[in-house]
Amino acid sequence: MSGTSFFSDMLQTITDRGRKLLSFGPRTPLISGSSNIDRLCELLLTSRGEASGMALAAQILQHWSRLDEKGQRDFMLLLFEKFGPDETKLDAAIQAYQTDRTPRAVLELHQAAEPRRQELIRRLNLAPNGISTLVNMRECLLALKVKTPELEAVDADFSHLFASWFNRGFLILRPVDWSTPAHILEKIIRYEAVHEIGDWDELRRRLAPADRRCFAFFHPQLSDDPLIFVEVALTKTIPEAISDVLDETRAPIPAQDAKTAVFYSISNCQVGLRGISFGNFLIKQVVEDLRRDFPNLDTFVTLSPVPGFANWLSKEKQSEHSELLTTEDKKALEILDEPGWANDPALETAAKEILLPLAARYFLNAKTPDGRPLDPVSRFHLGNGARLERINFLADRSDRAMRQAYGLMVNYLYKLDDIEANHEAFAQRNEIVSAPPIRKLLRHDKPAKNSAPAKSGTNPK
Amino acid sequence: MSGTSFFSDMLQTITDRGRKLLSFGPRTPLISGSSNIDRLCELLLTSRGEASGMALAAQILQHWSRLDEKGQRDFMLLLFEKFGPDETKLDAAIQAYQTDRTPRAVLELHQAAEPRRQELIRRLNLAPNGISTLVNMRECLLALKVKTPELEAVDADFSHLFASWFNRGFLILRPVDWSTPAHILEKIIRYEAVHEIGDWDELRRRLAPADRRCFAFFHPQLSDDPLIFVEVALTKTIPEAISDVLDETRAPIPAQDAKTAVFYSISNCQVGLRGISFGNFLIKQVVEDLRRDFPNLDTFVTLSPVPGFANWLSKEKQSEHSELLTTEDKKALEILDEPGWANDPALETAAKEILLPLAARYFLNAKTPDGRPLDPVSRFHLGNGARLERINFLADRSDRAMRQAYGLMVNYLYKLDDIEANHEAFAQRNEIVSAPPIRKLLRHDKPAKNSAPAKSGTNPK
Amino acid sequence: MSGTSFFSDMLQTITDRGRKLLSFGPRTPLISGSSNIDRLCELLLTSRGEASGMALAAQILQHWSRLDEKGQRDFMLLLFEKFGPDETKLDAAIQAYQTDRTPRAVLELHQAAEPRRQELIRRLNLAPNGISTLVNMRECLLALKVKTPELEAVDADFSHLFASWFNRGFLILRPVDWSTPAHILEKIIRYEAVHEIGDWDELRRRLAPADRRCFAFFHPQLSDDPLIFVEVALTKTIPEAISDVLDETRAPIPAQDAKTAVFYSISNCQVGLRGISFGNFLIKQVVEDLRRDFPNLDTFVTLSPVPGFANWLSKEKQSEHSELLTTEDKKALEILDEPGWANDPALETAAKEILLPLAARYFLNAKTPDGRPLDPVSRFHLGNGARLERINFLADRSDRAMRQAYGLMVNYLYKLDDIEANHEAFAQRNEIVSAPPIRKLLRHDKPAKNSAPAKSGTNPK
Amino acid sequence: MSGTSFFSDMLQTITDRGRKLLSFGPRTPLISGSSNIDRLCELLLTSRGEASGMALAAQILQHWSRLDEKGQRDFMLLLFEKFGPDETKLDAAIQAYQTDRTPRAVLELHQAAEPRRQELIRRLNLAPNGISTLVNMRECLLALKVKTPELEAVDADFSHLFASWFNRGFLILRPVDWSTPAHILEKIIRYEAVHEIGDWDELRRRLAPADRRCFAFFHPQLSDDPLIFVEVALTKTIPEAISDVLDETRAPIPAQDAKTAVFYSISNCQVGLRGISFGNFLIKQVVEDLRRDFPNLDTFVTLSPVPGFANWLSKEKQSEHSELLTTEDKKALEILDEPGWANDPALETAAKEILLPLAARYFLNAKTPDGRPLDPVSRFHLGNGARLERINFLADRSDRAMRQAYGLMVNYLYKLDDIEANHEAFAQRNEIVSAPPIRKLLRHDKPAKNSAPAKSGTNPK
Repeated sequence: MSGTSFFSDMLQTITDRGRKLLSFGPRTPLISGSSNIDRLCELLLTSRGEASGMALAAQILQHWSRLDEKGQRDFMLLLFEKFGPDETKLDAAIQAYQTDRTPRAVLELHQAAEPRRQELIRRLNLAPNGISTLVNMRECLLALKVKTPELEAVDADFSHLFASWFNRGFLILRPVDWSTPAHILEKIIRYEAVHEIGDWDELRRRLAPADRRCFAFFHPQLSDDPLIFVEVALTKTIPEAISDVLDETRAPIPAQDAKTAVFYSISNCQVGLRGISFGNFLIKQVVEDLRRDFPNLDTFVTLSPVPGFANWLSKEKQSEHSELLTTEDKKALEILDEPGWANDPALETAAKEILLPLAARYFLNAKTPDGRPLDPVSRFHLGNGARLERINFLADRSDRAMRQAYGLMVNYLYKLDDIEANHEAFAQRNEIVSAPPIRKLLRHDKPAKNSAPAKSGTNPK
Repeated sequence: MSGTSFFSDMLQTITDRGRKLLSFGPRTPLISGSSNIDRLCELLLTSRGEASGMALAAQILQHWSRLDEKGQRDFMLLLFEKFGPDETKLDAAIQAYQTDRTPRAVLELHQAAEPRRQELIRRLNLAPNGISTLVNMRECLLALKVKTPELEAVDADFSHLFASWFNRGFLILRPVDWSTPAHILEKIIRYEAVHEIGDWDELRRRLAPADRRCFAFFHPQLSDDPLIFVEVALTKTIPEAISDVLDETRAPIPAQDAKTAVFYSISNCQVGLRGISFGNFLIKQVVEDLRRDFPNLDTFVTLSPVPGFANWLSKEKQSEHSELLTTEDKKALEILDEPGWANDPALETAAKEILLPLAARYFLNAKTPDGRPLDPVSRFHLGNGARLERINFLADRSDRAMRQAYGLMVNYLYKLDDIEANHEAFAQRNEIVSAPPIRKLLRHDKPAKNSAPAKSGTNPK
Repeated sequence: MSGTSFFSDMLQTITDRGRKLLSFGPRTPLISGSSNIDRLCELLLTSRGEASGMALAAQILQHWSRLDEKGQRDFMLLLFEKFGPDETKLDAAIQAYQTDRTPRAVLELHQAAEPRRQELIRRLNLAPNGISTLVNMRECLLALKVKTPELEAVDADFSHLFASWFNRGFLILRPVDWSTPAHILEKIIRYEAVHEIGDWDELRRRLAPADRRCFAFFHPQLSDDPLIFVEVALTKTIPEAISDVLDETRAPIPAQDAKTAVFYSISNCQVGLRGISFGNFLIKQVVEDLRRDFPNLDTFVTLSPVPGFANWLSKEKQSEHSELLTTEDKKALEILDEPGWANDPALETAAKEILLPLAARYFLNAKTPDGRPLDPVSRFHLGNGARLERINFLADRSDRAMRQAYGLMVNYLYKLDDIEANHEAFAQRNEIVSAPPIRKLLRHDKPAKNSAPAKSGTNPK
Repeated sequence: MSGTSFFSDMLQTITDRGRKLLSFGPRTPLISGSSNIDRLCELLLTSRGEASGMALAAQILQHWSRLDEKGQRDFMLLLFEKFGPDETKLDAAIQAYQTDRTPRAVLELHQAAEPRRQELIRRLNLAPNGISTLVNMRECLLALKVKTPELEAVDADFSHLFASWFNRGFLILRPVDWSTPAHILEKIIRYEAVHEIGDWDELRRRLAPADRRCFAFFHPQLSDDPLIFVEVALTKTIPEAISDVLDETRAPIPAQDAKTAVFYSISNCQVGLRGISFGNFLIKQVVEDLRRDFPNLDTFVTLSPVPGFANWLSKEKQSEHSELLTTEDKKALEILDEPGWANDPALETAAKEILLPLAARYFLNAKTPDGRPLDPVSRFHLGNGARLERINFLADRSDRAMRQAYGLMVNYLYKLDDIEANHEAFAQRNEIVSAPPIRKLLRHDKPAKNSAPAKSGTNPK
């Protein structure tokens, strides 16, 4: 107990230190002039880097932080051009390997093929707060590589190192609540990506009530910044609309009365960590923690947006040879162009009739070229082993949801005993596990061509 | 302030969690039977590892912890034989690279050359306390590879990942004192490698007085175990003997009266991290911290053992064509074979006369085949940019020190303004920076052949 | 270091425990029915209170928390009537004392004169969160005693115990900043009594910039609730108006550039602790802390409201025989009745001419019946040893300040070397130490009658 | 969660501050010369104490810490003679009260009867670490008052204030384990009063195993010093001898397999707090905590020494008209004078036969003049509501136990449902609740005269 607290004290030094720049040895800049950045980088990679690594790394990162976009691109191109692998060494290593395939030859080949910038990035991490600047660097790099595709190679090195450093084993799950420090909470407001948090009063309504929870992953070296977080509502039943969850006037229930945990918002925080996946670990660990604290919980479910639906529908409508929409369908869909249809009971009923089967087709049949679901949120949860449980009509009337999905939301169900089998079915055979009513929507529909297999779950009891 | 404390709370969860095994999904073992360990490892590398990675990793590590030495060797050989790089892929990547040397081809070559066990080790780190077991694994591996040299290849992968995970940027320097938790302190007793700590009373004398300090590096994921620590005495002058520092009856001085900080013991703690270097960072950061807390300190110096001296002398004595020892020298050295010479004033004086010049030769002229100092402690401090300051006769009368070095100890001086230049001189030209009196000892001596250059310090002011 | 952290862990248990009601022994209510509250209180005072004190105390406090105002008065009257001193015992003790004035007789007299409710209140504190409920009790009691003066006797006992429990030696000064937990910060917003904090953005502007500080006193047993806090601006010069401090668009300065620390808002938080004085300790300790962290600071000063000025002026105007206001004064003051006078340069100049001398008279000559300054803020700071430094015209144009003080604010200067002498002069001779320009304002004024002595400060160098 | 951690940070400042003396205002001593201690005390009580209370209090306490025994007595006599109640005021208050017994008159009488040293002690608590020095003061006072009985009056004031400050509501229960800071643990070694802890290895055996627990009460202002602690063994059955608990070679059991919690050592730590009772709260709260963590526990029991038995027996033997011992008894008891009787099976059997009935008589019949059990440990546990469960023959063969109790130990059982009734029976009617076999020992014995009532437990089910 106090052991962990010794440890936590220990950790305080990280942030404390972060505030001052650690210098060592001569106080004057080691090398001045930004034109010399490549020389500084070379120095950091040499033996001199061992003597004054922290100071050199800090100087380079400080230099970076003053660059404009042009300067940033130049720096990244420098990494690309001058800090790739040493080709002479690589060629020699290949030849040695081809002569005699010893383990040592493989090892040397692997090392020779490693771009020198990997070691450079490792050494930049020596600077106080190094990791934070490096994550910011990659955020810029992701933007730059759109126009400068050769930077893909540089990004591969950042990704490789980040995957190692942000290994799940190093992440820490923490509850975020109304007693969390304000400078962390303001980041929750800023990073919330699904259901916007308007102000601190709204934040309070999401964190303070007894039937609300929020959990985030943190990294020991990025103490002030969550990596990803999930907001959870503890409820009696599976909610059909986001207003069930976010209604300002609802009465909280005692947490121990809840039967259902609803994951209604998951937000990644660090653009610079895009592609480093935390989400599935987050959900699994939160489920584990909630089950321990509230043994009464028996249902773990999401209330999720359908970000790609309207876009897909629009493409299908415009497509002359849509395999999924008939001319009648297209005709029927015109009611969605009527402003205010969602508030007119007659139009609403008609829309429901046409939209729900289309949504079922979207979820079960609309695929990426490599055969996976078109919807990114769907890919995420199905890939984690959830099953598609229910499509909710007019479940989110916010502008964004109406624009993206005509107000549809969907529940994905995490049934603990089935998660692994569901995941395998999806990962290996692209099988989408879904609840019978959703498949029934499809069958009522006209026969879809090319329909992928759909299953009801692996342990039908 | 409370932000860091939010963070430290956050970190508590690491150790708390470590105590229970996180399981998720089906509660029964995923696969039973230790014969199936290779299948479990393969599973962890496949998509199924994404669904139940934590549980799989925990199962493999648990399996490991029950192995005897034979089982451990088999497991390591399994890693060697079945989890190297995919050679087919590697050959294809080489061919593609040789056809067109695009950045993408280099990247793919690099990835193809990576042994599959690297990703396996990364995923083993998903288990609670994974890193701790992995460090223990490498400790075993280091022992195994003595007899099974092919395991060198496996060790290269552990080393590579550990160098990344134990990057200096992730380490935390912490004072260790008499208010540190007992379970940490008992490790200080256990790991002390230079001047043995006999019991808790002796530990108290090293930690509690106002003029004593101890600092250790910790890693966030190994919270209960220091990686390396240094013991420091705050004194008025540079000590000439270890008894100046460890004398039980000495009177402590107020810390702010001290002018000198003496690093009198540095111990690496984790055998499994051998070769991952922390020592130079440790000294530099401790110097930085001490300077901030005690502005009166103006001298930073070690009081170090000379572990290789007696051994070197013995070899030279036995060598028929020693370039360093004359027949007279050898004759004179016989007094060291007299038991109790160190307590006989006449013998002591004679021994001093013969030993000090020999010690100077040992430090300045005795080299490894690649031209570096023979003494490992000397290599460490000179490589960090210290200078060889003083050789102390009969400075440590303990059995070990008498056996290893006829009681000699040595001071290495860390002069802040010279550290970088000293380091460069040593790293690039094998130059040993030493104080004039030491070089003078050498000159009084008969001319040594093949003597390496020796300098007095780079900024002689 | 980790010792304090052992300690802090230790403290966590307080709040953790507070969340559940500690019960011991039989789980059923010890006695049911609110009519029995007097019996419960008697029980708590008897030997049975020793066996089940915590549970009994919790039951009584729970009962209290459900009472309406009538019930609360009844409870307090119960304490008054049935839990005073035991008069028989008291009479006997008096007689014994009058017979033989031994120390033991005094002691027994003192004990016999102690109302039984003191011990009752001590035992109520056994309940989890007892102290918090007791503070709330006294808040109610303060309101009740306005109409029920006999409750003064009960309040004396609460006051006596609170003065002991909230002894300065038990209070903890803590910085409050933007990394403080939100549930503490929302209390800062709620309790701010001088310059209202409109929302979280405004709070952030007061806490987050480098040149802002806030400090609060906490009590170990009231962990979530500050007792009193002060907001500080670090500035180059002494501000003349609150807008210098609170202007939204101002550019923060680096804290180490500041020469002046301005205490611009001090708020008591707990009504239930009224009369238990923390303010002077707070200012002294904050000065001490700031001087340690920022050695450049040489001026410690307030920017304070003048809450009683308009009221006093109004009374003087209406008084037919005011000794302080002539008929001309009264005439001249009519411009203050013009709406918008503060925005009309001509009226503003006229107002300044008439108001400043009157303010000087208010500060230096307007007294309470017992000869102390009429203005409560003035009494507080002068009593702490500050000197009246400067009166600032139109320094706060908020509605409240215009209504209370025609926009006047005042600086009190804490000059470290003079504090004690100033305090003595004020405490013993009602001397008001003020800067010469203020006394000059008075002299330019017509000679005031009955003017109290006024000094310029004790160490005029 | 982080709220409590904000709070714990907050508390760190206590000990941090304790290390430096807080001074304010002029840096020179306020008054020099120890002869002036009475003047310093008077000053602290005057208005000047408000301006420089902390510095004055610190100066007085520093003065105290340099006093020898003579100086300490003088200081205490000063408190006795010059800082009692103001008798003139007291006489006036008595007269006022006798004239008109208003609540105000009572209040003023109570205040007038309060010795001035109470306020002085309150103000001394303003000094950093004040409380710690005050506790030390009372430790000295307790020793002094043996020879100087008039100091009893001074002690009454210390006691009164300590009872208020160390109110159970302010104490914090903390587990003490092998991860507790060493400077706390060394105090556990020092304060252990029942079964001596020889060294750190023995301490480790008491704290580290899975089936051992230790809990202590701490006060927020005495963070480095436990007030009282209890050592607990988790076992399967009620132990019959201390060796069952402390045997070095025993194999620990998993904590969750335990059915019984054995309180085998309770030690008060602070002599200066003698008479301020924490013990009963400690046991109750530890029972509560253990029940929550280990629901399998169904028996809470002590293994206690019998400190007064041998002494009582010796007095009875010497008494010529003992009502409890017959001449035969006395004769039979002579075997206890044989050295080594406890290792001779025949003597051991004989001793058992004679000792057990006598022990039963000691527990059930031997009384203090006011009718309570003679044995102090017995008084403590029976007073807490435990029942006398079992007398264990030769249960502790240590020198002390052989000397004090011929090796006897006893179990007191805390049966949750009976605690309150047992306590009442004992507190009000001196009834000793004991297990039938103990009463049976008595009946087999010759009829005892004057035997007190003995019951088997209040809820015989």
